[in-house]
Amino acid sequence: MNGAKSLVDTLLGAGVDTCFANPGTSEMHFVAALDQNPGIRCVLGLHETVVTGMADGYWRLAGKPACTLLHCGPGLANGLANLHNARRARSGIVNIVGDQATYHRPHDAPLTADTEALARTVSSWVRTSTSAVDVGRDAAAAVQAARTHPGQIATLILPSDASWDEGGVPAQALPVPAASTIDVFAVRTAARVLRGDHGSAPGAGGARVLLLLAGQALSAAGQQLAWRVARATGAAVRADFVIGQMARGRGCPPIERVPYVTDQAVRALAGYDHLVLVGAKPPVGFFAYPGKPSTHYSPTAQLHVLARPEQDGLAALQALVDELGAPEVPAHDPGPRPLPERGAPTSEGLARTLAALLPEGAIVSDESVSYGRGIYPHTFAAAPHDWLHLAGGAIGDGLPVATGAAIGARAMGAGGRRVVSLQADGSAMYSLQALWTQARERLPCTTVLLNNRSYAILLGEYKGVGATPGPTAMDMLDLGRPALDWVKLAQGLGVEAARTTTLEGCADLLAASFRQPGPFLIDLVI
Amino acid sequence: MNGAKSLVDTLLGAGVDTCFANPGTSEMHFVAALDQNPGIRCVLGLHETVVTGMADGYWRLAGKPACTLLHCGPGLANGLANLHNARRARSGIVNIVGDQATYHRPHDAPLTADTEALARTVSSWVRTSTSAVDVGRDAAAAVQAARTHPGQIATLILPSDASWDEGGVPAQALPVPAASTIDVFAVRTAARVLRGDHGSAPGAGGARVLLLLAGQALSAAGQQLAWRVARATGAAVRADFVIGQMARGRGCPPIERVPYVTDQAVRALAGYDHLVLVGAKPPVGFFAYPGKPSTHYSPTAQLHVLARPEQDGLAALQALVDELGAPEVPAHDPGPRPLPERGAPTSEGLARTLAALLPEGAIVSDESVSYGRGIYPHTFAAAPHDWLHLAGGAIGDGLPVATGAAIGARAMGAGGRRVVSLQADGSAMYSLQALWTQARERLPCTTVLLNNRSYAILLGEYKGVGATPGPTAMDMLDLGRPALDWVKLAQGLGVEAARTTTLEGCADLLAASFRQPGPFLIDLVI
Repeated sequence: MNGAKSLVDTLLGAGVDTCFANPGTSEMHFVAALDQNPGIRCVLGLHETVVTGMADGYWRLAGKPACTLLHCGPGLANGLANLHNARRARSGIVNIVGDQATYHRPHDAPLTADTEALARTVSSWVRTSTSAVDVGRDAAAAVQAARTHPGQIATLILPSDASWDEGGVPAQALPVPAASTIDVFAVRTAARVLRGDHGSAPGAGGARVLLLLAGQALSAAGQQLAWRVARATGAAVRADFVIGQMARGRGCPPIERVPYVTDQAVRALAGYDHLVLVGAKPPVGFFAYPGKPSTHYSPTAQLHVLARPEQDGLAALQALVDELGAPEVPAHDPGPRPLPERGAPTSEGLARTLAALLPEGAIVSDESVSYGRGIYPHTFAAAPHDWLHLAGGAIGDGLPVATGAAIGARAMGAGGRRVVSLQADGSAMYSLQALWTQARERLPCTTVLLNNRSYAILLGEYKGVGATPGPTAMDMLDLGRPALDWVKLAQGLGVEAARTTTLEGCADLLAASFRQPGPFLIDLVI
Repeated sequence: MNGAKSLVDTLLGAGVDTCFANPGTSEMHFVAALDQNPGIRCVLGLHETVVTGMADGYWRLAGKPACTLLHCGPGLANGLANLHNARRARSGIVNIVGDQATYHRPHDAPLTADTEALARTVSSWVRTSTSAVDVGRDAAAAVQAARTHPGQIATLILPSDASWDEGGVPAQALPVPAASTIDVFAVRTAARVLRGDHGSAPGAGGARVLLLLAGQALSAAGQQLAWRVARATGAAVRADFVIGQMARGRGCPPIERVPYVTDQAVRALAGYDHLVLVGAKPPVGFFAYPGKPSTHYSPTAQLHVLARPEQDGLAALQALVDELGAPEVPAHDPGPRPLPERGAPTSEGLARTLAALLPEGAIVSDESVSYGRGIYPHTFAAAPHDWLHLAGGAIGDGLPVATGAAIGARAMGAGGRRVVSLQADGSAMYSLQALWTQARERLPCTTVLLNNRSYAILLGEYKGVGATPGPTAMDMLDLGRPALDWVKLAQGLGVEAARTTTLEGCADLLAASFRQPGPFLIDLVI
C-alpha cells in the first residue's frame, strides 16, 4: 500500500474518525485513501481557520483528537490563529499538512514555504515523514502526542511522494501516557495553606485563600470538589480567565472567572494572600498597559501549585478533599430559573433570556468579547450546559469552535445537544465561512450575532491607553460604514437568519431555532 | 515624543502614505499617533489576509510600499498567506506588527507567540524594536529593505512599550539601493546564443532559443525590447507562469505565459535548446506528480541568465538590443478588438467579451484559477491594461490585491482606472471580506465571480494523480451543498451585485458597472 493508505489505516486504528479538511493538490493521495476507507468522516471547511477551529471544538466535546488536512505551508499558515487558540485551550489536534515532494522541494516551487517553522510556532510535536515506510509510524506518534494530557497540537508534514510511494506500513496505536501523577507534597502544602497552618507570617491564620481553577478542575466533578474545599475552609473559588471550557448551570457552584480588564482583575484578586493553582497558570494581563502591573495577583501573595496543567487536576482536588477531610456538601442552589427578558438588549438581559431558554446539555461557544463579560452571574440557574471560551485571544474561533463542537457531540452520540454561539460581529467576520459548514452538515447551531457595528473592545482599549479617539482611530474601530448585513451573509452561506432589535424578539427566535434540527443565525442589533 | 509618533514621522518621511490595518490593543498608541498626523491614509480590512493582500496590490500599482498594521503573532499569522504571495510576486511591503511589551513577554500572556519566527517565513528583513529610541532608525531600515529592488517584505515588530515610551527619534529616509547592475558578460553570452554563435554543439546554429520574461521585463517597454530581439533573431518570447503582473493589450506583443499544467508546460518548452532568463527563474512545476519531471524545460536545454530578479531586467534587455543591433519594430497589431459574445459562458467567450469592453488603463486581478487559463490569447486586442496574477499559489489574493491595486492607482492620481477581478468562487471564499473594504472606500472594482460551485482545479489535480474520485473526494471538492449565494454575500458586505447565466448578461453588467464609480459583483454561473 502507499504511504497515504498507511496513514489512514493508522489514524483509524488510533481512534481518529473525523478529518476536518481543506485539501489541495499535494493531499490528493490522502483524499484518495479516504475514498478507499470510509471509516473517517470528512468535514470540509472553506478556509483553514475554520478547519483548525472545528478541530479544536471537536476535541473539547469528544475528548479525543480529530485530524485536520491542510495544504502546504500557506494552508497551515491560514489555520495558525485557531491552532494558537487551541494550544492555549490545551486541545489535542493531529494536523496533517501535505507538502512538496521531497525531491521537488529544492526547486523552490511557488507554494514552497518553511512549513516546519510555521508548525513549530503552535505545535508540541512536529515531524516530516520523508518516506512512505515512515508514515504509519510517524502518524501513530502524532496521535500519541495529541492525546498526551491535557491535549497537545501535533503536526505531521507529509511530502507528496511519501504519500504516493508504495511501502506504507500501518502502525499500531501507541499507548497514551497517563496524566503526570499528582504531587503528595503539593497536596499537603495546599491543605496546610487552606487550614491557615502555614507557619511563618504573623497573622497568617486569617489569611485569605483563593482556589484558582482551569482544565479538568472545571468539569462538574472538579468544581464540586473545589466547592467542598471552599465550604470546609472558607477559601474562595474562581476560574482562570484563560480557559477552554467549563461546566456551568444548575448543579454547578456559582464560580466566576477572573475578569479580563486589568483594573478589575487586580481588584478581584487584591484580597488574597494565597493562590492555590489547580491546572491554572499565575494570572497575568492579556496585555501590559502603561503604569499597570503585568501580574494580576497581589505582589505579596504566595502562589501554590496544587496541580500543573499536565497533571491530573481532578485527582489532585480529590486528594485535597481527602487530606482536609472536607465533608460532602449539597449542590449549590442558584434559585429559580430566570424568565426571558423584554425590551432593548442589554448584556444582563440577554444573559437572563439565555438562562431561561437554554436546553439541558446545551453548549455555548462564547466569543462575545466585551459584550459578554457580564453574562456569567446571570446564567448560574440555567439548565446544566457546557461553556466554551476563546482561550488564546486570537479572534475568530467562536463560529468554527461551535461547528466543531456540534460535530464532536454528534461523534459521541449526543448530536441533539444544541450549540449556541454568542458571537461579536467583528470577530465573526474572521471566520464567517464556518456558517456554510453548519448548513452543509445540518448542525444544531444557533448563532446570536451581537451586532454593535464596531470593534467595541478596542474603543475600550484605546481609552485604556489614555487617549481620546480622533477621526483616524474612530475610523479604524468602526464597522458600520457600510453596515454588515448579517441576515444576507448567513443566507448567502446557506443558513437561515433573521434580525431583531429586542430581547423578546431574540427569545422568540432562540426558542424557534431550538425546535429545528439545523443552523440559524439571529442578528441581534445591540 | 513616544516611539509610535517617531514611527509615523519616519514612515511619512520615507514616502509611506498608506497604512492597511487591522489593529488590536498593542497597536493603540500607533493608531493614536496616526490621529495626530493625518498624512497617512488608513484603510481597514476585516481580516489580516485582506490587509496584506491589499498592501501587495498597492505596491504593484504604486511602485512604492504601503505599511500594514497587524496585531501580535496570530494577527501576522492570519496575513501570512498573502505575504507569501507578495514575496513570490516580489512586492515591497513594510509590516508593522504590534506585540507584547518587552517586560510583559516573559509572562507568556495568551496572545504571546513566536512573532519573529512567523515573520521570518515570508520576510527578507525582520527586526524587533526593543526600545522607543530605536523605533525611528529601525523603521527607516524597514522601508529601505522593502524598497530594495525588485521589492521585499520587511517586518518591524513593535513591542507596545517601545511604542508608548518617550524617547522616539524620527529617522531620515535611507537611500534606496539601485537594482544590481547588469552583467556585461551575461549580455554578450545571451547575444551569442541568440545569434546561433554558441560554439560547441554540432548543428547548434539552428538551435531554438526562448526568451523567458518576468518582473520589469514584462513592463510594456520590456516586452517591446524583447520583441525586437525576437524579431531580429528568430527567438521566441514567453512570460514565466510565476509573475506578479504584466502589461497587456493593444500595443504589447502577443506574449503567452508558460502553461500551469505540467504536460502542457513540458510540451510548450520541449523545442527550446536554450532559455535566456530575464528576471525569471528556471521554470519548474507548481507541484511534483508521479512519473513527471520537476523541471519544465527540456533536460538537454541550456539556461542562460541575462538578468537575475534583483538586477535591472529592463536595462539588460536594452543592452541586449544594443549588442545585437536589433532594429526598432512597430508595435504588434493584434487585429480588431473583438465584440462581446452571447450565450452560455465559456472561458474564450468571456475573454473576448472582456477584450471588447475593458476600458483603457484597466487593471485585471486574475484569480480565475483553472477557468482563466485560456483567456490570454483572446485579449491581445483589448485596450491597453495591466494584468495582475497570483504568483505564490496561496489562494485568496485576488480580491484583496484588486482592492489594494485600486487604492494604489488612486494614490498615484489614477483613481479612475477600473479594476476587474476574474475570481473563482472557491478562492473568493478565502478573502471575501475584501468586498467590504471596496464598498467602504468606494473603489471602482468590478468582480466577475466565476461560479462553478466546486474546487474545479482539484478535480483536475485528482485525476492528474491517476485516481477516479469516489464519494469522499467528490464531497471534498464540491461547493454546491449548500450553494453559495454570491449576490447575497456581496450585498451583505455592502457591494451591489447581480447574477447572470449568459455572456450577454455579463456584458451588460460589466458595461453598467464601468459607468459607476463604486464596486459591483457579477455572479456569473459557469
